[in-house]
Amino acid sequence: MLTFVGLGLYDERSITVEGREAIGEADRVFVERYTSTLAGATVEDLEAFHGVDIRVRDRTGVERDPEPILDAAASGEAAFLVGGDPMVSTTHVDLRLRAHGRDISTRIVHGTSAGSAAASLSGLQNYRFGKATTLPFPRSDGSVPASVIDTIAENRERGLHTLVYLDIEAEHEAYMTAAEAAGLLAVPLDDPLGVAIARAGSDAPVVAADRLSALADRDFGDPLHLVIIPGDLHHVEAAALQAFAGAPPALAETAGRGDR
Amino acid sequence: MLTFVGLGLYDERSITVEGREAIGEADRVFVERYTSTLAGATVEDLEAFHGVDIRVRDRTGVERDPEPILDAAASGEAAFLVGGDPMVSTTHVDLRLRAHGRDISTRIVHGTSAGSAAASLSGLQNYRFGKATTLPFPRSDGSVPASVIDTIAENRERGLHTLVYLDIEAEHEAYMTAAEAAGLLAVPLDDPLGVAIARAGSDAPVVAADRLSALADRDFGDPLHLVIIPGDLHHVEAAALQAFAGAPPALAETAGRGDR
Repeated sequence: MLTFVGLGLYDERSITVEGREAIGEADRVFVERYTSTLAGATVEDLEAFHGVDIRVRDRTGVERDPEPILDAAASGEAAFLVGGDPMVSTTHVDLRLRAHGRDISTRIVHGTSAGSAAASLSGLQNYRFGKATTLPFPRSDGSVPASVIDTIAENRERGLHTLVYLDIEAEHEAYMTAAEAAGLLAVPLDDPLGVAIARAGSDAPVVAADRLSALADRDFGDPLHLVIIPGDLHHVEAAALQAFAGAPPALAETAGRGDR
Repeated sequence: MLTFVGLGLYDERSITVEGREAIGEADRVFVERYTSTLAGATVEDLEAFHGVDIRVRDRTGVERDPEPILDAAASGEAAFLVGGDPMVSTTHVDLRLRAHGRDISTRIVHGTSAGSAAASLSGLQNYRFGKATTLPFPRSDGSVPASVIDTIAENRERGLHTLVYLDIEAEHEAYMTAAEAAGLLAVPLDDPLGVAIARAGSDAPVVAADRLSALADRDFGDPLHLVIIPGDLHHVEAAALQAFAGAPPALAETAGRGDR
């Protein structure tokens, strides 16, 4: 059996009780360190918390040499740990398909996820988000891919919020900051209201709402960061952004209007 | 302090370690039973698991008489338990705003959520979902609100998947089934490929992909159920729907194409 276990958002306490049990029952435990990583816990922290040895696999290890994981799952219980909710990366689905091809049964233990947390922390309603997008590290000319701008624009046309995931190069411990993202997006989007979220899932998340050009000048501290570009705001959403994210009232009360 | 604690998807073991600690540290624990409820655990199960007394609040209790919760949070540690990830309902955000208005600090402990789980279980990629929608119990003429059909159609035009939440009347223990939803949606959508998901977050979730008219004839067992209407399928997504949801190959390989 190969069990994909979501580690959740931030540190070793972000996992579910069920996930903790799944790790305890596993004969072999692997963790992947390329799509998402826990900002608040090291692999050593995880090993100490769960009382197990954990083998770290990089992208190449999972994609090109999945056999050690599959062999462990064929002969016993293997747990494959992933930050957030598992299966976000195509690589995870591909690993599950390879297991299926070898008649190895699979199971998914869900974890808390950034998409849901971004809505909860900001007070923006989950069902008012459109397609999410990922902002990559800038090209040498500092430009933003048209696909990112198009996704945000199409969502705003429909009055919808956009969650912008920020690029991570976990193997180099490089994380795009919300300030950097706000700076990249301010001009092409005509400097709308934005929401920066730092350290979702930790005891001290930061949520800040202001014009992107203002967010670009701030320091939100340690990773991970996310950005939301709101669409039209329901009055409870506008009130939440003022109360919990310090949004300037005039900006929150008019966000999105006039775009449609 | 008022701590909103997400109970996660299915039963008492779906909560995070951090959430379990927050309940243990609370002087008073409340649970809401109107927007979402755990299909796999009763309030008594939660009380036994956490070793605490839990007060059940219905919608009226939270919306019109929040004072007992706010008083408990003003004088000590109060935990407000919500199925899934907290703050999905406007009522939760409103309660947080009321706490803010009384200078009561608030904290959110995230839970696993249906939106993320639906993507993980189906193998459909999270970032290829558009706006989600909720299918209400049918009107007397059996018709589906135009807004539901419009949301799915707009997503499909952009090649995006749609997660369809199914109506719940928790106080009457009435849950729309995926079969009922598939039956309602088949005609207005011209009978496309759909995905039914039952009991996400449990040890035995069911994931089934077929034409909506075929899903309408099946029995997916106990709640909760969800439906996904896929947009265009990436080849790994098509392979996952065949391997893990029994999608007919011809249907999975052509889904969404021709709609754009």
